[in-house]
Amino acid sequence: MNKPLVIGVAGLGTVGAGVLQMLEDNADLVTGRAGRPIRVAAVCARSRNKDRGLSLSGIDWEQDPVRLAARPDIDVFVELIGGEEGPAKQAIEAAIRAGKSIVTANKALLAVHGNGIAVAAEAAGVTLRFEAAVAGGIPVVKSLTESLAGDRVLRVMGVMNGTCNYILTRMESTGKSYGEIFAEAEGLGYLEADPTLDVGGIDAGHKLALLASIAFGTKVDFKGMEIEGIERISIGDIEQAGDMGYRVKLVCVSRISDQGLEQRTQPCLVPANSPLGQVEDATNIVVLEGERTGPVFLRGAGAGQGPTASAVLGDIIDIARGRKISTFGQPADTLRPAKPIRVAAMVPYYVRLLLVDRPGVLATVAAAFGDAGISINRLRQYGHADKAAPVLIVTHPTGRTELSQALDAIRSSGVSVNDPVAIRIEEV
Amino acid sequence: MNKPLVIGVAGLGTVGAGVLQMLEDNADLVTGRAGRPIRVAAVCARSRNKDRGLSLSGIDWEQDPVRLAARPDIDVFVELIGGEEGPAKQAIEAAIRAGKSIVTANKALLAVHGNGIAVAAEAAGVTLRFEAAVAGGIPVVKSLTESLAGDRVLRVMGVMNGTCNYILTRMESTGKSYGEIFAEAEGLGYLEADPTLDVGGIDAGHKLALLASIAFGTKVDFKGMEIEGIERISIGDIEQAGDMGYRVKLVCVSRISDQGLEQRTQPCLVPANSPLGQVEDATNIVVLEGERTGPVFLRGAGAGQGPTASAVLGDIIDIARGRKISTFGQPADTLRPAKPIRVAAMVPYYVRLLLVDRPGVLATVAAAFGDAGISINRLRQYGHADKAAPVLIVTHPTGRTELSQALDAIRSSGVSVNDPVAIRIEEV
Repeated sequence: MNKPLVIGVAGLGTVGAGVLQMLEDNADLVTGRAGRPIRVAAVCARSRNKDRGLSLSGIDWEQDPVRLAARPDIDVFVELIGGEEGPAKQAIEAAIRAGKSIVTANKALLAVHGNGIAVAAEAAGVTLRFEAAVAGGIPVVKSLTESLAGDRVLRVMGVMNGTCNYILTRMESTGKSYGEIFAEAEGLGYLEADPTLDVGGIDAGHKLALLASIAFGTKVDFKGMEIEGIERISIGDIEQAGDMGYRVKLVCVSRISDQGLEQRTQPCLVPANSPLGQVEDATNIVVLEGERTGPVFLRGAGAGQGPTASAVLGDIIDIARGRKISTFGQPADTLRPAKPIRVAAMVPYYVRLLLVDRPGVLATVAAAFGDAGISINRLRQYGHADKAAPVLIVTHPTGRTELSQALDAIRSSGVSVNDPVAIRIEEV
Repeated sequence: MNKPLVIGVAGLGTVGAGVLQMLEDNADLVTGRAGRPIRVAAVCARSRNKDRGLSLSGIDWEQDPVRLAARPDIDVFVELIGGEEGPAKQAIEAAIRAGKSIVTANKALLAVHGNGIAVAAEAAGVTLRFEAAVAGGIPVVKSLTESLAGDRVLRVMGVMNGTCNYILTRMESTGKSYGEIFAEAEGLGYLEADPTLDVGGIDAGHKLALLASIAFGTKVDFKGMEIEGIERISIGDIEQAGDMGYRVKLVCVSRISDQGLEQRTQPCLVPANSPLGQVEDATNIVVLEGERTGPVFLRGAGAGQGPTASAVLGDIIDIARGRKISTFGQPADTLRPAKPIRVAAMVPYYVRLLLVDRPGVLATVAAAFGDAGISINRLRQYGHADKAAPVLIVTHPTGRTELSQALDAIRSSGVSVNDPVAIRIEEV
């Protein structure tokens, strides 16, 4: 029997408890595949006495994750505390100083401090893996870092926040407003203590920032990302987009060009029958588009105890098998800074207007688009009982400047009762 | 600069030429990610003078793949010759004897001789990787072997033969017969010299045998697989299945139970709006279902120069980065033999009958199912001008024995003009 890999686990929430449970239930299988047993030497968590349905006998209890991270008897420090500052960061830094490899699910920490942490880890010769940080049980970090390593990546995109997707799916199926479904989700305990992390697009943005760095060999740049949450999506947008064959999703997209790095997390319309349009509730999907490989679609459970714990365990087994790899797929000190740009490609837009009901207004709108050089693909005016006519427009692909020009012209012409709503359309 | 990884490439067909082209075009990127340059020392192929659009200057030409495999200057032997016997097998055996790691796209060889080759490779301490052998550019071997290593795999399934999928998709869209579309595909050069490999389900079966071994820790057992090709699928089956909300796909499924290992490659009905039902033409999809991870869907280009070359290159870079792993995810001498079984689960069936037009025949059919203990989920009888009435039946999940009993009863009752057609329905 080979020497066991000894781990210390900080954080015994849903995921941490799941990892310990899997290690216990699948011990034989894990030993066979890893080529050696994986043994938990010590754990720490906020509360020692909480019932987690786990036996912790034979496992040391540490009060302090920093102390746990540096224990002489562990090979790998498993960080499942979370949070971009505080104990998680201190413990990971301590683990690096002590020469321990690290497995973490902490997207916030890596999205904000990933460059420095990766440089330090590589200088210390330790491996840091984070499959569970992005899209739960879907093997996206590994696929991008390893399977597509020979190919030039053109685009990374996905639907990677289960809470947003749940809210949008529920709005669509019930016809209720964002506020009502948000309250419902809160009542069910689906939201974080700070729900902005989810509904504000920050959590999905963290994930995208990590994938973009691997894909394009650029420094992790969460600050350079354009982020918009789902808070302003109305039930009208969802219903009318549906009528045009689209669904609203919080879409993450990143592309690189000679101009710089585009990273966007924002509500978009996607064709209802497309792979992105079909993910429901907490399912995630990620698309990795390689120049030679073409688009690869990876879809599965983006969160939850089992899928996330499985991803953590996959990383631990990788290290047990002797895996050594740079955090973001190439040495961290060779990652290039990239200029953040807002648009790297022309896309079609969906525009929702509420037009005053008098002759000539549609001509004014059409002229506003035409003057900006934008072709209209589809236009639909709805029957209406009151004074204003709902009008939906799907444009041909256009730039943002052109779109802004058209919308400004509509605003200043006074023909629209509402402030025009414009949502990007992402085709895969 | 680190020491280059030196490779020898045997076989310069579509995939081999693609690998050399990618290594040339993406040299900087590959060096950055692999941590060292990847240099091609020598190649061999059947014809030296064929124009492949490649410069081979600075690369040695070998006549004999066996000699190439054992060259003292190479670290990795890349086998892209193909075929389950002959030069590919001899060259891989020579590479193992010479202590070279191996990257191959050869599913036939591994499906038939994989156990012995893996034992030999592991005894010699060399790594053998084969991502390109299964589903082209889709990272399914890596995801299953590495990402899901901590989880118990419950099921592996997929649509993994582009030629079959192309033929079935074209039959559906044109309304033409199998024979007509087969001839069309032949004219377009889409078929192998021996088309049975594709349309007979053998190629897809080879892929499934490899995935089943990794998933369940069992010896590769291609011979124990149940295989049925698409040759007997009629346009009537496709159209009438479509009418019931299904599409016909060549589906690979493997599950394990206490009774043994189920491995099946056969035409099945899948819901038209399901992930398997939606793959068209040469797109492949694989579903890896983990006990804790849930189902993970991987979809992309299952063949073609770019995707397959990218998969080969991913494996080469893995080895350049120092990757060592057992061929099938655990030491080959610990893979268990498994008893082949024909059914590990109850599934619903689609049954197509052509009933003689006289009173009482439907009652006879209903009684045949009822007597066998099979519940009917849906039944549809079509209007008809001639003497026989087409009847489609979708059963509730049932066993094969029960189904055979019902079909035998229908046959011997003489109420059906045709021999009843029964096709499994696979829901994901």
